[in-house]
Amino acid sequence: MPVPDIRPEWIVIVRLQLGTLAMTLRPVITLTTDFGLTDPFVGVMKGVIADICPAAHVIDITHGVKAFDVLEGALAIWQAWRYFPAETVHVIVVDPGVGSSRQPVLSRMGNAWFIAPDNGVLTLVEREARRGGGAILPRSLQNPEYRLPAQSNTFHGRDIFAPAAAHLAAQIERGAVAAETFGPEIESLIQLPVPGPIHNPDGSIEGIILKSDRFGNLLTNIAAADLPDDRTNFSLELGSLRIARFCRYYAEAPPGELFAIVGSSGLLEIATNRGSAQRATGMEPGVRFRLISC
Amino acid sequence: MPVPDIRPEWIVIVRLQLGTLAMTLRPVITLTTDFGLTDPFVGVMKGVIADICPAAHVIDITHGVKAFDVLEGALAIWQAWRYFPAETVHVIVVDPGVGSSRQPVLSRMGNAWFIAPDNGVLTLVEREARRGGGAILPRSLQNPEYRLPAQSNTFHGRDIFAPAAAHLAAQIERGAVAAETFGPEIESLIQLPVPGPIHNPDGSIEGIILKSDRFGNLLTNIAAADLPDDRTNFSLELGSLRIARFCRYYAEAPPGELFAIVGSSGLLEIATNRGSAQRATGMEPGVRFRLISC
Amino acid sequence: MPVPDIRPEWIVIVRLQLGTLAMTLRPVITLTTDFGLTDPFVGVMKGVIADICPAAHVIDITHGVKAFDVLEGALAIWQAWRYFPAETVHVIVVDPGVGSSRQPVLSRMGNAWFIAPDNGVLTLVEREARRGGGAILPRSLQNPEYRLPAQSNTFHGRDIFAPAAAHLAAQIERGAVAAETFGPEIESLIQLPVPGPIHNPDGSIEGIILKSDRFGNLLTNIAAADLPDDRTNFSLELGSLRIARFCRYYAEAPPGELFAIVGSSGLLEIATNRGSAQRATGMEPGVRFRLISC
Repeated sequence: MPVPDIRPEWIVIVRLQLGTLAMTLRPVITLTTDFGLTDPFVGVMKGVIADICPAAHVIDITHGVKAFDVLEGALAIWQAWRYFPAETVHVIVVDPGVGSSRQPVLSRMGNAWFIAPDNGVLTLVEREARRGGGAILPRSLQNPEYRLPAQSNTFHGRDIFAPAAAHLAAQIERGAVAAETFGPEIESLIQLPVPGPIHNPDGSIEGIILKSDRFGNLLTNIAAADLPDDRTNFSLELGSLRIARFCRYYAEAPPGELFAIVGSSGLLEIATNRGSAQRATGMEPGVRFRLISC
Repeated sequence: MPVPDIRPEWIVIVRLQLGTLAMTLRPVITLTTDFGLTDPFVGVMKGVIADICPAAHVIDITHGVKAFDVLEGALAIWQAWRYFPAETVHVIVVDPGVGSSRQPVLSRMGNAWFIAPDNGVLTLVEREARRGGGAILPRSLQNPEYRLPAQSNTFHGRDIFAPAAAHLAAQIERGAVAAETFGPEIESLIQLPVPGPIHNPDGSIEGIILKSDRFGNLLTNIAAADLPDDRTNFSLELGSLRIARFCRYYAEAPPGELFAIVGSSGLLEIATNRGSAQRATGMEPGVRFRLISC
Repeated sequence: MPVPDIRPEWIVIVRLQLGTLAMTLRPVITLTTDFGLTDPFVGVMKGVIADICPAAHVIDITHGVKAFDVLEGALAIWQAWRYFPAETVHVIVVDPGVGSSRQPVLSRMGNAWFIAPDNGVLTLVEREARRGGGAILPRSLQNPEYRLPAQSNTFHGRDIFAPAAAHLAAQIERGAVAAETFGPEIESLIQLPVPGPIHNPDGSIEGIILKSDRFGNLLTNIAAADLPDDRTNFSLELGSLRIARFCRYYAEAPPGELFAIVGSSGLLEIATNRGSAQRATGMEPGVRFRLISC
């Protein structure tokens, strides 16, 4: 059969079909690390991915996790993962134990894949995904074919995690995921001891500041669901400070006043309008506070 | 009709056609925010976009706009927009009024689309686009189908702006833009009071420093067109400083000497070779200066 | 011939073929600059690229090179380039001489393309590539058709380097690279005087600190191959400090102890577990040290 001439109508058809195919053609890989952006580390991981799976669509969640801070990494991926397409491959590398006996793992939770060191960085995602069901046993990334040929002991993001993610994305692109090819199953992931809120008999709640965001909003470990429905009569005791106002949005309060608010991740935050609650209070992650309904 | 075998010649043909199609297949969305890169905010917006319009090509203009600084955001998108392909969707989120009554808007200016809060952040683009004609009435982003199902009051970048941009990009990809589906027309956008240069009767020009860039160059509100053609005899009075040299490129002056230069955005800058004019002068955005032809 | 109906089997076939084509369909361009991420400079370069070669896949290596630091830029691209696919176009813009007589160049080294100012920023890549052979004569980027129509004297990243990279990527995409169209050959690239390690007659090695990375690890100019095989008996003299421990991975030493390690780029590093060797030692790039086998 001879090759037919390309006709204008065909282009329209191919274009329509490609729209339909775009999702599977561009498997999404996300990156969450403490690598920062001043060194070439992140760029190198993307080079490795582009070499193995050229069609992969790599999205940075953040590379600004504080160095070695596994809890902050756990928070970042927990805040982000539910907003990505199904079958996204999330790579998290906050890995102070790189090169030691800690294992690199692949895990499926909810509708997504996770590739990370087994050091607790997936704890918050796992807790949430477990409620929705669907988790399968994690695997240890032992397959040497899914690693770079020469491996360092100091940059597994490049040598183990990025290649594994790219091979998985290539399987997703071909519509033929074979999780068993990545390595043997392991029984469970290591859990990070993330402190939950404490509900006292007197009705008060004790919480802890988890992190300060770019705007100086202080994120806490208290979820909206932990709060009483009536938010008009309460007092938040943070060191010597008393915060009695609850706002729905930042611009509701005049600049300079501290208030409590449910932030975009569903967590209670301490904030101030057009200013930094972190700078106004001097409070750091780890500080405890009390919430009292009056 | 049976499916024909794929022959090598077909691959070449498909490849050539795809080259032609690539532009429409990858609608461009840009992001300009004050979100910084240490939190997962930007990554989350990209997840939302990838979920709605997998083919979208997202390009960061900057996320380093000073927190809440609408004028700096207006400058950033004005510096950048003209370098992007036609039909690019520019998303600008510098939004201290998030959750309040300020409106999220879609606007077409020049050959591009703009999605932003209606707080003046589009003022500079609008002024420039108006000269070229082609603006259409902006619309308020009210269509609930183009928002995430659950909306916060604190992160409209995720819940309103990113989904709207992705839906518009999907329409562009399909070649079927329907701006009217985004929401009702509004009469005009809010204007930011950006101070222009003042031309005095004695021929001197009063200007203001708009921002300091990464290299410490001080960008001003005086455009090249505002300057006299003869740049050899002038004096720039900035506080107690007198700058009398005008350079065409940075390396023209010896390190340490301050000079004036027309920067890459066509604005008068105060600069120094291999050093920071900001640090050398201590001058901040908002400071006024005088330009005198001698 | 009428346009045939699209049948499900065809979609599968097109999808499989597209997998094969993805590599050539997405020519990779990398960016390494000292532009930072707070200004729109990098976004603008990507806009220029998307306009000329919409299919290009742009990957940031880093934009955090210290302002005007050509050596740091040379190190960054040297650390990264070998991890990218063949035919990648690497753009490096650390360019204090922008607008002066220094030339913008295109060079092929190893299996990749390099576009940069001719100021020594390619020195380290060239040394490595020369060992592997394959370098061709560099060219001066003189073709006005591969520049933006209006050129500034202060932002050649936008006006010369990005357009040249995009035109080259478009040639790669079409499978028709014509290096000669970029400009005339030049004889050689300018070499940066990068100090190598000094091997003393007494067997000691003198090295220099090249940079401090995000974790505070101090990278040196001594490669693993320069080191004696026996790493158990040595002493590193850095100012008044004596470092006698050699580790294979960071977590091998207790926090607080300084040690030597071969880092992920194959260079000797001075490091500490879960901490910053830079902060612990106060040492900056340029500081010399001695390595003594005992």
